Amino acid sequence: MQPDMTHDAGARSWLDAANRDDTPFPLQNLPFSVFRRAGAGEPFRGGVALGDQVIDLGALAEAGVLSGLAAEAARACGAPTLNVFFGMGPPAWRALRHALFELFRQSGAQSRNDLPAHCLVPQAVVEYGLPAQIGDYTDFYTSIDHARNIVRLLRPDGALSPNFQWMPVAYHGRTSSIGLSGQTVRRPIGQRLPAGQSEPELAACARLDYELELGIFIGVGNEQGTRIPVGSAEEHVFGLCLLNDWSARDIQSWESTPLGPFHAKNFATTISPWIVTMDALIPFRTGWSRPPGEPQPLPYLASPATCERGAIDIQLEVALETATHRRSGAAPTRLSRTSFRHQYWTIGQMVTHHTVGGCNLRSGDLLGSGTISGPTQAEAGALIELTRAGQSPVSLETGETRAFLEDGDAIVMTGWCERAGYARIGFGENRGEIVPADCL
Amino acid sequence: MQPDMTHDAGARSWLDAANRDDTPFPLQNLPFSVFRRAGAGEPFRGGVALGDQVIDLGALAEAGVLSGLAAEAARACGAPTLNVFFGMGPPAWRALRHALFELFRQSGAQSRNDLPAHCLVPQAVVEYGLPAQIGDYTDFYTSIDHARNIVRLLRPDGALSPNFQWMPVAYHGRTSSIGLSGQTVRRPIGQRLPAGQSEPELAACARLDYELELGIFIGVGNEQGTRIPVGSAEEHVFGLCLLNDWSARDIQSWESTPLGPFHAKNFATTISPWIVTMDALIPFRTGWSRPPGEPQPLPYLASPATCERGAIDIQLEVALETATHRRSGAAPTRLSRTSFRHQYWTIGQMVTHHTVGGCNLRSGDLLGSGTISGPTQAEAGALIELTRAGQSPVSLETGETRAFLEDGDAIVMTGWCERAGYARIGFGENRGEIVPADCL
Repeated sequence: MQPDMTHDAGARSWLDAANRDDTPFPLQNLPFSVFRRAGAGEPFRGGVALGDQVIDLGALAEAGVLSGLAAEAARACGAPTLNVFFGMGPPAWRALRHALFELFRQSGAQSRNDLPAHCLVPQAVVEYGLPAQIGDYTDFYTSIDHARNIVRLLRPDGALSPNFQWMPVAYHGRTSSIGLSGQTVRRPIGQRLPAGQSEPELAACARLDYELELGIFIGVGNEQGTRIPVGSAEEHVFGLCLLNDWSARDIQSWESTPLGPFHAKNFATTISPWIVTMDALIPFRTGWSRPPGEPQPLPYLASPATCERGAIDIQLEVALETATHRRSGAAPTRLSRTSFRHQYWTIGQMVTHHTVGGCNLRSGDLLGSGTISGPTQAEAGALIELTRAGQSPVSLETGETRAFLEDGDAIVMTGWCERAGYARIGFGENRGEIVPADCL
Repeated sequence: MQPDMTHDAGARSWLDAANRDDTPFPLQNLPFSVFRRAGAGEPFRGGVALGDQVIDLGALAEAGVLSGLAAEAARACGAPTLNVFFGMGPPAWRALRHALFELFRQSGAQSRNDLPAHCLVPQAVVEYGLPAQIGDYTDFYTSIDHARNIVRLLRPDGALSPNFQWMPVAYHGRTSSIGLSGQTVRRPIGQRLPAGQSEPELAACARLDYELELGIFIGVGNEQGTRIPVGSAEEHVFGLCLLNDWSARDIQSWESTPLGPFHAKNFATTISPWIVTMDALIPFRTGWSRPPGEPQPLPYLASPATCERGAIDIQLEVALETATHRRSGAAPTRLSRTSFRHQYWTIGQMVTHHTVGGCNLRSGDLLGSGTISGPTQAEAGALIELTRAGQSPVSLETGETRAFLEDGDAIVMTGWCERAGYARIGFGENRGEIVPADCL
């Protein structure tokens, strides 16, 4: 897939806010969400971000300014979730992207006056919903830098599990507790084993952490008993959002053997409202390869396209905002910054591996990329790595330190793509704030 | 909760088939499913089994023979899934149970002539659907006999994981691949590590197994961030079905460290169509206690009712039917028989532990009990235990042997409750047949 006219950096919109250097949502982005005017008793429906507005896709379809497959796709987006639209597949996704680009382009056939005013809703007055009914959520473990950081801290021999370099390791997650940016997250209670003890206790989590991830929305699924070949795996992916895989480290270490994390993860997962499409990310694809000395993937996980453009250079940043930041009006403290291009396994490989045994994916399923950490310590995607399991707390500009998250702390994740000759594409932000645990 | 009139063994129905000694579905059972006439283009809707018939609850509601909460509950059952009915809670479930008991009782105010004929549909002509939209599926690990069998086979020290005796261990499962009794299951393909090798291969599973479990349907959920106390946990449970947690042992041993089973389980899970309600099981509750020398549960997992009637004496049997059985017309070979009363953790404890960290359950969520094995070798709930990881294949009456499942093998699970002075309550059967793997 090569960049096309919708990636033309010179294209500008008749909507001025979409042309500002600091918008995450220029004409070349066009990410999807579901939204409604806050407090207006409206149903949720699909929207696309442009500058500081949301394009109301159902209203647009009704206005009669779209035709053919693009009109059909926009009508499907009028529903409270995007599952049906996702299931229409890449031709429909692309037809709608191209039609919106043309409709909102400065020199296109249309102008603001041709559109009913209610087709654009200011982002300032809306609230967002979960973009899909998420049938299943799978969380991967695909950053080798993250895996190495963790095993150095937790395993006496510091050795990666032998399967890591052979498969994108994954486990099933909880869908009921997936929430949207802006949510508050109650500190979980759970069993933990106090140091030096042989009997566990029930207590509020004392080692609460975040994990920086990308959320991957499945567009088109597969039938149970069939597999998705790696060469076409990305045609099944609609797009990406930011994902915070909140983690309770003390609960995790006690509960996870032999069946994996459960309470350590299932109290909450937070995603950003906007899904940036795989089509919008085309200019930011980069080559993927195995570092020298690492095993090559088995044939079912290898394709020429994977090597040519399997990685995506998405810049990711995590910031911490404490109650002190908020009181003083200080900007949140940046904790880390990295890129998704370092990931050991690609999105296509995750999709293919997920289905190799015949497991069926459905439209709207969510995959977590696994924690995204880069090769240096400053690029680590979780506090457990940054603070070396709490032994080296991070210092904040407020004068505070943090080994793990405290009540009132908010984690703010942002993501964007930039490359010379192309418009900057933003993911918006993903924010969640910790509130105190319930009484025991 | 004490037995009430709906448990009266002397009560008989005007529907003769419900009074036969060999029916799993007497008047005292009244289990729920969703069904439709096969091939008739009808929508799925809720039904209750009685003898050899299905009571069409939506049709019954329309017929005007129910009133009040029972009528409201029956109307909710007219939908293609039972989620809304589940969410109505125990008063509605009990109102409908009592009304159906009264309506179909021989000496009740009604007789067959008072009911429109289409309110009863012969089971012989129907097909079943998944009874609920299952938002999340969680699989537990709560039989200490199963756990001991497994660790003796797989761990050099044969030691239980330290958390087993302190919490009902669980992991998240896959909802998309949950299917109904009668389904065929394609042998999965996956990565495995050949003995003595350091590099994995992609191959069809060579150690395919079943696991005997009960499926637990959540009736009423909880809000995210809140907990369900153990004293009232079972008021959140609608009922139980039979569940086969198909397992690919060679895939499982290679993939499961550190995040638990994934492909080993997510290719298929099979449940029986009928949900036997917790109300129907009241006469079969038995006391629950910890064997001497075992730790007592932490306070959040303990209640007087747990000790008094936390266990349920449900008889369970697994049979294997090979292609040779079918060709020769021989009855399937019984592999094992046990009771759910041996389980180390109760259903109420599972529900409470699931929510202790604030994870929200929703109406229609499914919990797997974990493999149910009793204290003797003949009571083991999986082939890996019965055959000691394949080293001691079981002999079948057909002259065949099995270390693990072969293509064409069908696993048939049955369950029932019996106790002197009470009607025998059946679960029906749960059947799934293995078909060959896809080409590599």
